[in-house]
Amino acid sequence: MKIFVVHAHPEPKSFCTAMKSAAVETFERQGHEVQVSDLYAMGFQPVASQADFGDRANPDYCVYALEQRHGATTGTLSADIRAELDKLFWCDLVVFVFPLFWYSTPAILKGWIDRVFVSGRVYGGKRFYDRGGLAGRRALVGLTLGGQEHMFGPQGIHGPIEDMLKPFLQGTLAYAGLQVLPPFIGWHVPYVTDEARHQLMAAWEHRLRSVQDDVPLRFPSLADYDDQLHPLNVAM
Amino acid sequence: MKIFVVHAHPEPKSFCTAMKSAAVETFERQGHEVQVSDLYAMGFQPVASQADFGDRANPDYCVYALEQRHGATTGTLSADIRAELDKLFWCDLVVFVFPLFWYSTPAILKGWIDRVFVSGRVYGGKRFYDRGGLAGRRALVGLTLGGQEHMFGPQGIHGPIEDMLKPFLQGTLAYAGLQVLPPFIGWHVPYVTDEARHQLMAAWEHRLRSVQDDVPLRFPSLADYDDQLHPLNVAM
Repeated sequence: MKIFVVHAHPEPKSFCTAMKSAAVETFERQGHEVQVSDLYAMGFQPVASQADFGDRANPDYCVYALEQRHGATTGTLSADIRAELDKLFWCDLVVFVFPLFWYSTPAILKGWIDRVFVSGRVYGGKRFYDRGGLAGRRALVGLTLGGQEHMFGPQGIHGPIEDMLKPFLQGTLAYAGLQVLPPFIGWHVPYVTDEARHQLMAAWEHRLRSVQDDVPLRFPSLADYDDQLHPLNVAM
Repeated sequence: MKIFVVHAHPEPKSFCTAMKSAAVETFERQGHEVQVSDLYAMGFQPVASQADFGDRANPDYCVYALEQRHGATTGTLSADIRAELDKLFWCDLVVFVFPLFWYSTPAILKGWIDRVFVSGRVYGGKRFYDRGGLAGRRALVGLTLGGQEHMFGPQGIHGPIEDMLKPFLQGTLAYAGLQVLPPFIGWHVPYVTDEARHQLMAAWEHRLRSVQDDVPLRFPSLADYDDQLHPLNVAM
């Protein structure tokens, strides 16, 4: 497999960064090809702006998605976006490793999505969900958070973690066509014992080694909707 | 009222930016005091990093939240964070105006949350939900998106928009103690007629003028959980 690891943590000595390193080592030991974007180490610039476009469809008024399409067609997207796109379309599996900030990705990773998931290649028109531009590829999320597992779930104060992750797992990764594997969640990481952290790392490495056996989560299919995206079968 | 408008759109001529301007004008006409953070215009730096701290609790290993607490206590957070915190704790109502990017805030606004919602003031310890650091203040979200309303809701392909907004409305704003008003949603904005846009702007201005009558959404209360955040009443 060709595997692209996208990582975002501000502390190089963090457990989360060790999860990234474990992913690279585990996959390489298995003979996979691995590329890494360590967004903090790269100083990735996360703000979607008019500066992302070397040539403009409309120089006077920027609709970001329309300029993405123009940039993708004409090859005039900024160099950092093109470099990330090359890795994304090269890979069979993309692995995201990050700490949950405010029940979402850190801004540096959010901006990577905003800028790299370009209309015209990753999505756009009817290119989404199972017809998304990244269809045929898989995605694995490995995240760490401060919260404890009992704070989540139907009775937990925050509700199910899956609900908090919906904009990323469904609205971003599945939307882009990726087959999204069940996320790996490192609960309460800053506050647990070293022993618990060792167990967590072992569980992560086990997930990585067996990733080819994982069954993707289920998300909407365009086959269940008409051309205007009205549901074909209300009872579904 | 004292009102703080936080805005994030890369195109100054956009409808979304016009919503921000309408908010400022409407509130000022009503005699309210208004401060604005236009994040793109300010060139706001959204990446949470070790550079945010002028003095470190632990110079060798950065747990971002712990350094936030130290920085808040010692007054050594970076100047741009302190300036935003001053506006946040000054206001009675904070209004967020932004385009929905990937079912979430643009990275520049996500990073504003990551950096400005500091542990030790906005949250931390048992300081969350109705005991959050911003308790007593209200929040209004006005957002635009490309999607149409029928693509959302229980039968819509993306599910209810409220679910997509949960990490922001509940996991961020309500978590920080804000009373969150029902969001104002500008559907399909890039693709509608001028006439539809005028109607949408009129509806937004109506919401702004009557914001004091709005009934906040309901979110978890710490009163329903024990000290370990286990629910007190499983039947609730």
